[in-house]
Amino acid sequence: MTADPQEITLPVETGAGLAAAAGFEYAGVEAGLKASGGRDVALIHNLGPEFTAAAVFTSNRFAAAPVEWSRQVVSDGRVDAVVLNSGGANACTGPEGFQNAHRTAEEVGELLHAAAGDVLVCSTGLIGVQLPMDRVSAGVREAASSLASGAEADRAAAEAIMTTDTVPKRASVVLETEEGPVAVGGIAKGAGMLAPGLATMLVVLTTDASLPAEDLDAALRTATAYSFDRADSDGCMSTNDTVALLASGASGVTPERGRFEEALRQVCVSLALQLIGDAEGASHDVHVTTVNAATEGQALEVSRAVSRSNLVKTAIFGNDPNWGRILAEVGTTRADYEPERVDVSINGVTICRGGAIGEDRSLVDLAGDRRVEIAIDLRAGAARATVWTNDLTHDYVEENSAYSS
Amino acid sequence: MTADPQEITLPVETGAGLAAAAGFEYAGVEAGLKASGGRDVALIHNLGPEFTAAAVFTSNRFAAAPVEWSRQVVSDGRVDAVVLNSGGANACTGPEGFQNAHRTAEEVGELLHAAAGDVLVCSTGLIGVQLPMDRVSAGVREAASSLASGAEADRAAAEAIMTTDTVPKRASVVLETEEGPVAVGGIAKGAGMLAPGLATMLVVLTTDASLPAEDLDAALRTATAYSFDRADSDGCMSTNDTVALLASGASGVTPERGRFEEALRQVCVSLALQLIGDAEGASHDVHVTTVNAATEGQALEVSRAVSRSNLVKTAIFGNDPNWGRILAEVGTTRADYEPERVDVSINGVTICRGGAIGEDRSLVDLAGDRRVEIAIDLRAGAARATVWTNDLTHDYVEENSAYSS
Repeated sequence: MTADPQEITLPVETGAGLAAAAGFEYAGVEAGLKASGGRDVALIHNLGPEFTAAAVFTSNRFAAAPVEWSRQVVSDGRVDAVVLNSGGANACTGPEGFQNAHRTAEEVGELLHAAAGDVLVCSTGLIGVQLPMDRVSAGVREAASSLASGAEADRAAAEAIMTTDTVPKRASVVLETEEGPVAVGGIAKGAGMLAPGLATMLVVLTTDASLPAEDLDAALRTATAYSFDRADSDGCMSTNDTVALLASGASGVTPERGRFEEALRQVCVSLALQLIGDAEGASHDVHVTTVNAATEGQALEVSRAVSRSNLVKTAIFGNDPNWGRILAEVGTTRADYEPERVDVSINGVTICRGGAIGEDRSLVDLAGDRRVEIAIDLRAGAARATVWTNDLTHDYVEENSAYSS
Repeated sequence: MTADPQEITLPVETGAGLAAAAGFEYAGVEAGLKASGGRDVALIHNLGPEFTAAAVFTSNRFAAAPVEWSRQVVSDGRVDAVVLNSGGANACTGPEGFQNAHRTAEEVGELLHAAAGDVLVCSTGLIGVQLPMDRVSAGVREAASSLASGAEADRAAAEAIMTTDTVPKRASVVLETEEGPVAVGGIAKGAGMLAPGLATMLVVLTTDASLPAEDLDAALRTATAYSFDRADSDGCMSTNDTVALLASGASGVTPERGRFEEALRQVCVSLALQLIGDAEGASHDVHVTTVNAATEGQALEVSRAVSRSNLVKTAIFGNDPNWGRILAEVGTTRADYEPERVDVSINGVTICRGGAIGEDRSLVDLAGDRRVEIAIDLRAGAARATVWTNDLTHDYVEENSAYSS
């Protein structure tokens, strides 16, 4: 693991140079589920020869029907396909909603000659509305008939899971090993976090590595802990968050576990940063880093508290380096520190020193860049953690008040 | 205690009919501390014959200098006067800030022939800026020379502690006893909550009852638990929150403890509702009530989680009865309930029944009234709790991004 497990040090590709994992086909089609139009049903098919998988889900107790279904599917470590839809979360939809998720898996299974019990289902959109199943079924049939391998099909799938996203999110990295290359890639939608998690984040990661399901599960939990778990756009936990990892074994290579974990983690960090970079209405990406904490958990608690403050987030929208609002949040945590020893810097300017007035706030430039770096030095140990968040803007209020989502 | 300890059943006055407690003088003057102009230094003087007092403070670990000072002052149960200023929080100001709070108390003590150690100091405004002490001193002198009894002077004091408040907040109730009447009143500023608390809420409660400091302390803790602790406008805890209760004994009456507690609690509920009704930028007051919870603590946990959701708050601003966002917050709590038995109603319409789709959302009218009632029925017991909050609006973003506060 690198010194900072949230840093990207490998050549992670996010655009044209993206290499999709071998052994997978993708599709993304327009089924008429999204009022705004565009692709809204995605299908990802593992062609094997292996079908190992792992997944993590929202910890919300009102988990959506597809989450309840998919938890059962992945429990045996085998997944043949993932079907995803935007335009409806299928959450809080009662027994009918669960039957709809089940039926979608059965339809995909029939089309792909797989067991329904090996098909993950993911949905995103408005909570509390039944899906129009005739449209979903038609979309699934069209998706199955248009499955293809390669980066273009992968992009179509990434587009089909977009809701308020303005761009598709994709990332991949190729690991060179003595046995040959191994690809690890993924697509994502929504700005989100797991456990607690928000904003209906869906992520499907694919690799052509040959790895047992237990290794995938362990790697996925580490990777999400250092990536999606630390992205917190608006503090709200979704009913639908799902991060799935499918391995086809098509490379024939079993990479060293530490190297695979590192690659997977960095793909997830890239996707998490893309989610934050496209969060609803945001005008700044804010990196809240707590350093010199007694434990990593305490560093995370402090960074998370600051990243959830509406007063901090509105100040940043206003390009106001209001460090008093930051300290006020640090003061709500139970982390070890002496108030009169805490420093706060914004974009490298230590505007608070020893819990009191530091350098002049006029030295801080917040208007020049989308990215803002807040650093809180607790002087209580050697641990660190960063939480990525956004500012709170008029556009956030507009997007979330003017439209039901 | 009434069935719902958050309800007002006594004739609490908030306007012209307000009766100030006997044995107190008030003043509010303009000292040039607030950039916006207007009164900004308030003084409240207890004339006795008794000087008992209690106070509760923010639990923020970056407590402001006046909070640190006032904690010491009230620890012996005697307070002769309270001096308050807007235009600067005197928080995160280091040793110089503490010396300034101390010096202000000394100046008040000299002017009123009281010990500095019996003078509470409260400040509100921007964190991390030193107070202009020459102006504070001049303001204190002017306030001391303009002290007067009665409702008009009480109103001047209430005005002097306003920051982004648009109206002064006052409340009083007169208890009739066999020994004669007892008045309980108070002034407040800011929308706030204690432990955790927010928005630099300052409250001074005055009574002419004759009660020992221990009784005042117990009554104050109960009253704040059912009032200010359940007002949560934006989830941010302040460094300056202070609620003080001073008793002059001027009525000569020692009321029955239960009746005094009830009166004090209802004055505090009235002030808390006034704070929510005037919260920054809000267009709706939202009452989030959880009923049939296993315990009151669980009811409070659920109501508080819902009241802190930016997605719920923006939906209400948009007059959208988006119950899915409410359930998603309930799902983050550890309260006892079965998801498939939870009902949610908005303004009396049960739009979610049994954790799934209930009555049509078009039946809910949110545009007609500033007040919105959200009720969550957990069907897990008999306990209840309400948290009062606001919607999240463009004006909130504007007020908190455009101006340092």
